[in-house]
Amino acid sequence: MRFTSKRRLDDGVLERDFTLDGIPGILWTPGASPSPAAPAPLVLVGHPGGLHRMRPRVAGRARHYAAEHGFAAATVEMPGAGDRPPMPGVERARADLLRARAAGEPVTEVVDRLVLPMVDAAVPEWRAAIDALLELPEIGGPVAYEGGVIAVGVRLALVEPRIAAACLFAGSFVPAATFAEARQVSIPLRVLVQWDDEGNDRQAALELFDAFGSAEKSLHANLGGHTGVPQSEMHEGARFFARHLR
Amino acid sequence: MRFTSKRRLDDGVLERDFTLDGIPGILWTPGASPSPAAPAPLVLVGHPGGLHRMRPRVAGRARHYAAEHGFAAATVEMPGAGDRPPMPGVERARADLLRARAAGEPVTEVVDRLVLPMVDAAVPEWRAAIDALLELPEIGGPVAYEGGVIAVGVRLALVEPRIAAACLFAGSFVPAATFAEARQVSIPLRVLVQWDDEGNDRQAALELFDAFGSAEKSLHANLGGHTGVPQSEMHEGARFFARHLR
Repeated sequence: MRFTSKRRLDDGVLERDFTLDGIPGILWTPGASPSPAAPAPLVLVGHPGGLHRMRPRVAGRARHYAAEHGFAAATVEMPGAGDRPPMPGVERARADLLRARAAGEPVTEVVDRLVLPMVDAAVPEWRAAIDALLELPEIGGPVAYEGGVIAVGVRLALVEPRIAAACLFAGSFVPAATFAEARQVSIPLRVLVQWDDEGNDRQAALELFDAFGSAEKSLHANLGGHTGVPQSEMHEGARFFARHLR
Repeated sequence: MRFTSKRRLDDGVLERDFTLDGIPGILWTPGASPSPAAPAPLVLVGHPGGLHRMRPRVAGRARHYAAEHGFAAATVEMPGAGDRPPMPGVERARADLLRARAAGEPVTEVVDRLVLPMVDAAVPEWRAAIDALLELPEIGGPVAYEGGVIAVGVRLALVEPRIAAACLFAGSFVPAATFAEARQVSIPLRVLVQWDDEGNDRQAALELFDAFGSAEKSLHANLGGHTGVPQSEMHEGARFFARHLR
């Protein structure tokens, strides 16, 4: 892990860009620097890929976690996105999905081809990022995951024992395999659904919430479209993490 | 309105029992007494009736609102419940509902007979309670309503302009007329659903959430049965009220 730039922001948060095995990432740590004696818990901020475009939204949440709750927050670029080498199979699947939806054709097989290779590639990278971030003296476990892509969050919640809680945004297509994985997830969960999400299937989101095996799980549905998640969900999500990370 | 007893509780909250036109009620006000110059907003705490039995749960939430947020909180006994004169039609409907459910028969007509007379009787009483409570110098508007019975909350949200926000528990039968009223409700809303509520229809709760006309509405579904609403919902609900009552 190599830091490539750093800035102190006006809320006191230290923002550092890094690369890890060639993958770009960003780390935010609280202004009152956590010490090795009291290391900060880590929140991973998920996104669909394309950090240049997603940066304002990701940074908005990450800075809130760091400034208001003393968490470290980090993200990495998704495979095939931003400045990373494209994944030709995923690009083809994305084009096929647009075509299938425009034609009103079933999308099950296309969604598998679009999402599952991304999950298979991304999850080991997020786990490597956890390894590297937890080696920093100012960051300790446990770890939370929040945001999209929901299939990535489900896989991480299932296979990564350091993840203690997750707040997942049900705003993207869900492969059938992800439902099967959700049944085995047991960590405390919050699932966000935008009630009028243009690109998302409300019924699938409700069924996915129902499928999760966790004994503690909450569904928060809010009125509005894909990008309309209200600010209050970030505040409440941070307090949900505080209960499970401290 | 006549106060019949008062106690200072160990969280500093002042708890007073009262009667209003023969209807028993309870009022909780913050320890740091609100002054006429800065009167406390009012949260009405709803319940299905039977204040002796419901008192611990109602008082738990009311004391949180008063002690942690400086709100006044109040409740009144429901018509036909507790020590109040029974409503024979409602009693008959309750027995008919049990019989119809045991026999697997449709309940639509019975639910109307059970819930609507209770709504018609209760809502004017809650409004009279608002009148009386707002005359106390230490209490000012605006007003919020929280809890059950959801058909009472919907009617109050629709007809009582002093109600600025509501947090409704979708844990009881919903008459068709209530769906029609929900479409006309426009105040900020939070709807709580227990995902495994034995006595409640999950699909009806989701449809009722969908029906509300409010531009700001959130559905919070939590795992567990009717009485298993997690403590965190009370904390988050109080902050939701704080945003809309201050």
